[in-house]
Amino acid sequence: MPQARLCSCWGGRVLPLLLAYVCYLLLGATVFQLLEKQAEAQSRDQFQFEKLRFLENYTCLDQRALEQFVQVIMEAWVKGVNPKGNSTNPSNWDFGSSFFFAGTVVTTIGYGNLAPSTEAGQVFCVFYALVGIPLNVVFLNHLGAGLHAHLAALERWEEQPRRSQLLQILGLALFLTLGTLVILIFPPMVFSHVEGWSFGEGFYFAFITLSTIGFGDYVVGTDPSKHYISVYRSLAAIWILLGLAWLALVLPLGPLLLHRCSQLWLLS
Amino acid sequence: MPQARLCSCWGGRVLPLLLAYVCYLLLGATVFQLLEKQAEAQSRDQFQFEKLRFLENYTCLDQRALEQFVQVIMEAWVKGVNPKGNSTNPSNWDFGSSFFFAGTVVTTIGYGNLAPSTEAGQVFCVFYALVGIPLNVVFLNHLGAGLHAHLAALERWEEQPRRSQLLQILGLALFLTLGTLVILIFPPMVFSHVEGWSFGEGFYFAFITLSTIGFGDYVVGTDPSKHYISVYRSLAAIWILLGLAWLALVLPLGPLLLHRCSQLWLLS
Ligand SMILES: [K+]
Ligand SMILES: [K+]
Repeated sequence: MPQARLCSCWGGRVLPLLLAYVCYLLLGATVFQLLEKQAEAQSRDQFQFEKLRFLENYTCLDQRALEQFVQVIMEAWVKGVNPKGNSTNPSNWDFGSSFFFAGTVVTTIGYGNLAPSTEAGQVFCVFYALVGIPLNVVFLNHLGAGLHAHLAALERWEEQPRRSQLLQILGLALFLTLGTLVILIFPPMVFSHVEGWSFGEGFYFAFITLSTIGFGDYVVGTDPSKHYISVYRSLAAIWILLGLAWLALVLPLGPLLLHRCSQLWLLS
Repeated sequence: MPQARLCSCWGGRVLPLLLAYVCYLLLGATVFQLLEKQAEAQSRDQFQFEKLRFLENYTCLDQRALEQFVQVIMEAWVKGVNPKGNSTNPSNWDFGSSFFFAGTVVTTIGYGNLAPSTEAGQVFCVFYALVGIPLNVVFLNHLGAGLHAHLAALERWEEQPRRSQLLQILGLALFLTLGTLVILIFPPMVFSHVEGWSFGEGFYFAFITLSTIGFGDYVVGTDPSKHYISVYRSLAAIWILLGLAWLALVLPLGPLLLHRCSQLWLLS
């Protein structure tokens, strides 16, 4: 019997889901291409133009020498050396940065602005993540156990009078809104101010971080031309941790809240 | 009563967990620093040396001009333009790459070798991820529903004779091992062959991908000097999908299998 249900489930649910999934990816591919391809072509032309201007201004250089230099710069960049400025740049692997890196491993954000380049570092990274990722999941789940009190109140919801039901939903909605403000609105404002981003870019950074996508195109505390206060990175790390715990709690609440609201609506 | 249990849970479990978590991060920070800092210093010295040699060879260049050129290259790189080669490089946002990018968004791998640079692209990316990440989770969970048959067999385990218990555990272990070989050993071999990586690097890429960390330091199908067969990226995408579904199923099985083995051990 469960065997049969499973088989029908495979054909009945997985195939439409696969179709929806592939269509969603195709949709994304189309829109991203539409939005980004032209901007990319412009950046490309701009770069070719600057390269040509450079060759014209410095006549001792030929195309081959320039390409060679580009190669040198890109190799340095891939190995984690910032080619801008001189060798007095702070190390990418000082303790604070290394700590931040460990955090991006266990949370699976993985910005990639730092990544182990030695074989030993890569081997350690694999074993570190094998233990660290489950530890992070367990920790985040426990960190937010406090919110379950609210959830428990919603669970005993049906025994309560109508008015108190409404108050509870309002209270929970207020709580969720305030939390989201504290996690998703206020920190991006601070980050955009410190990093010189627009608020939109700050919010984009916050979203890409807390969704654990972590492209690494925007990372706080990595501009070598800026002098950050010493606790800035630690505060960012605490924000990431609290944000992830908050989302781990809030996201499952969404469907429950919707369900309760629809019940209230149908009963009125 | 549940209120009291929750409070004691906060003090009783969260604090030791917090301690363990912070200690684990400190440990990681120390080891990564030990492993990487020296290699970084070497790469840095190497780069400064090559820069100096370049300045000596091309005497029309001064330090300031060189820094300016580095700036131009890094700006192009940040905007997603590969500074190597000429403008005939294939676009980063052709349909195949854009599709691959959409996949790295919904799976939260987010390599970041491609990321939206326009404001419209960033806004769309946020909304795309908001729908796509849950869709991906639901899809992956359903994709592997077939394995639950094995899980169900293990659930009805205690009613069965001793010999069949042993056979079942062996069968499951074989199944898990074979699956892991197909997902974690064979594809890295292919990738390292095609990309010119060592097997270790191929395995590191596979681990960083399937754990959804996605540093982006190794990404298949992105070397502009290589001509990949047209289905290579699609095969890689299918591997990622199957691998994630496999892990979503196998990881919860681990504790169950350990528990059953210990039961068998205690009874013998
Ligand atoms: K990631
Ligand atoms: K990432």
